[in-house]
Amino acid sequence: MCAEQELVVDLLGALAYHELTAFAHRAQGCQLAVALADKTALGGMAVAHFGHHQQLFRQLTSLGVDPAVAMAPFVPLIDEFHLSTAPSDWLEGVVKGYVGEGIGADFYREVANLLDPPTTELVGEVLADTGYASFALRTVRTTVAADPACAGRIALWARRLAGEVLGQARHMTERDTFGRLVVGDGLRIDVGRMLEPVTAAHEQRMVRLGLAS
Amino acid sequence: MCAEQELVVDLLGALAYHELTAFAHRAQGCQLAVALADKTALGGMAVAHFGHHQQLFRQLTSLGVDPAVAMAPFVPLIDEFHLSTAPSDWLEGVVKGYVGEGIGADFYREVANLLDPPTTELVGEVLADTGYASFALRTVRTTVAADPACAGRIALWARRLAGEVLGQARHMTERDTFGRLVVGDGLRIDVGRMLEPVTAAHEQRMVRLGLAS
Repeated sequence: MCAEQELVVDLLGALAYHELTAFAHRAQGCQLAVALADKTALGGMAVAHFGHHQQLFRQLTSLGVDPAVAMAPFVPLIDEFHLSTAPSDWLEGVVKGYVGEGIGADFYREVANLLDPPTTELVGEVLADTGYASFALRTVRTTVAADPACAGRIALWARRLAGEVLGQARHMTERDTFGRLVVGDGLRIDVGRMLEPVTAAHEQRMVRLGLAS
Repeated sequence: MCAEQELVVDLLGALAYHELTAFAHRAQGCQLAVALADKTALGGMAVAHFGHHQQLFRQLTSLGVDPAVAMAPFVPLIDEFHLSTAPSDWLEGVVKGYVGEGIGADFYREVANLLDPPTTELVGEVLADTGYASFALRTVRTTVAADPACAGRIALWARRLAGEVLGQARHMTERDTFGRLVVGDGLRIDVGRMLEPVTAAHEQRMVRLGLAS
C-alpha cells in the first residue's frame, strides 16, 4: 500500500469511529432533551451519523481493509478526548457537539483535500451537516438570551474544546501515515498551514454563537 | 372518537415513546460496549428502534392525531420507570434491555390483540426482535460463566425489573381509555388474566438467561 492509500485508510478509519461517537452523542442528546420535537430531531440526526459510519465501513471493506482494524488506532484517541471533555450540563453538551465536531469535520476535510477525488467526495458527503448546526445555534442563543451570565462560562468551554480538538488533530498528523505523505513539489505537509482555515472556521462559529471575544 | 380508537391512540402513543427510549438505550449500549463489533451491532439496533418510532409517528399522524399529544401522557411514566431502574453497570443495563423491554413488548402485544387487525399487525411489526435478545443472552451467559457469583445479584435485579414493568403495565390499564373498552360479551377487560401470558413469557426468559430460581 502506498503512502497515500495508507493515509486514506487512516482517514476513513478515524472518520468511521468519529461518526459512531457522533451517533451516540446525538442519541444521548435525544435522551436528555426535554421537548419531544427536539428528541425526534436529535434522534434523526443520530440515525444519519450511523448511516455515515456504515458508508465508511463499506468503503473500507471495499478497499480490502477490515474496518475494525482501520478504526482501532483512533478508538483510544477519540475516547480519551470525550472522557477529558465530558460536558457538565446539557448546554455544554450542545456546544461541544457544535464546536468540537465542527473543528473535527473541518480538519478531516483538509486531510481529504490532500487525497484522491473519490475520497474527498466521500468525506465531504459524510461530513455534510445533519441539521445540528442550526439546532445548536438556536439552543445556545436562546439559553444565553435567558441567562446572559452563562455566556462567559460557555465561551471558556468552547475555547477549551477548540484547544483539545486542535491538539488531537496535531496528534493525528504525527502518525507515520501522515509523515510519509509527500505533496505537491515534494515537500512534507505543512501542518500549521493546514490548520489555518480550520481555526478560521472555528472563529466564525464563535461569532455565530455570539461568543466571540 | 370511540373507546377502541382512543385505546389505539394510547397504545401507539405509548409505544412510540417506548421505541424512542429503546433507541436511546441501545445507542448508550453502543457507547459503553468495548468490542467494536458490539458497538456496530447495538448501533444498528438503535437505528431499527428509531425506524419503529417513525413508523408509529406516521401512523398517529395518518389517524389525525398529533404524535406529541399521543405520547405526552406516557413520557412521565416511562421516564420515571427508567430513572427508578437506572442500571449500576453494563451487565445490569443489558439485562434491563432484555427483561424490561421483553415484558413491555409482551404487554403491548396483549393490548394490541384487543384491537383491530391493522393495529395488531403494526404493533407486531414494530416489536419484532432487532437481534437484541441473542446479544443479551450471549452477554449474560458469558459474564455469569466467568463470574458465577454475580448470578444472584442479576437474578434479583431481573426480578425487581419485572415487578416495576408489571406495575407500570397495571398503571396503564387504569387509564380511562382502558376502562371504557368493553370486549367480547360485554365484559370489561380482565387485567389479571391479560397479564398471565406476559408473566409466563418473562419466566421463560429467566430460564433462557439461566437465572430461573
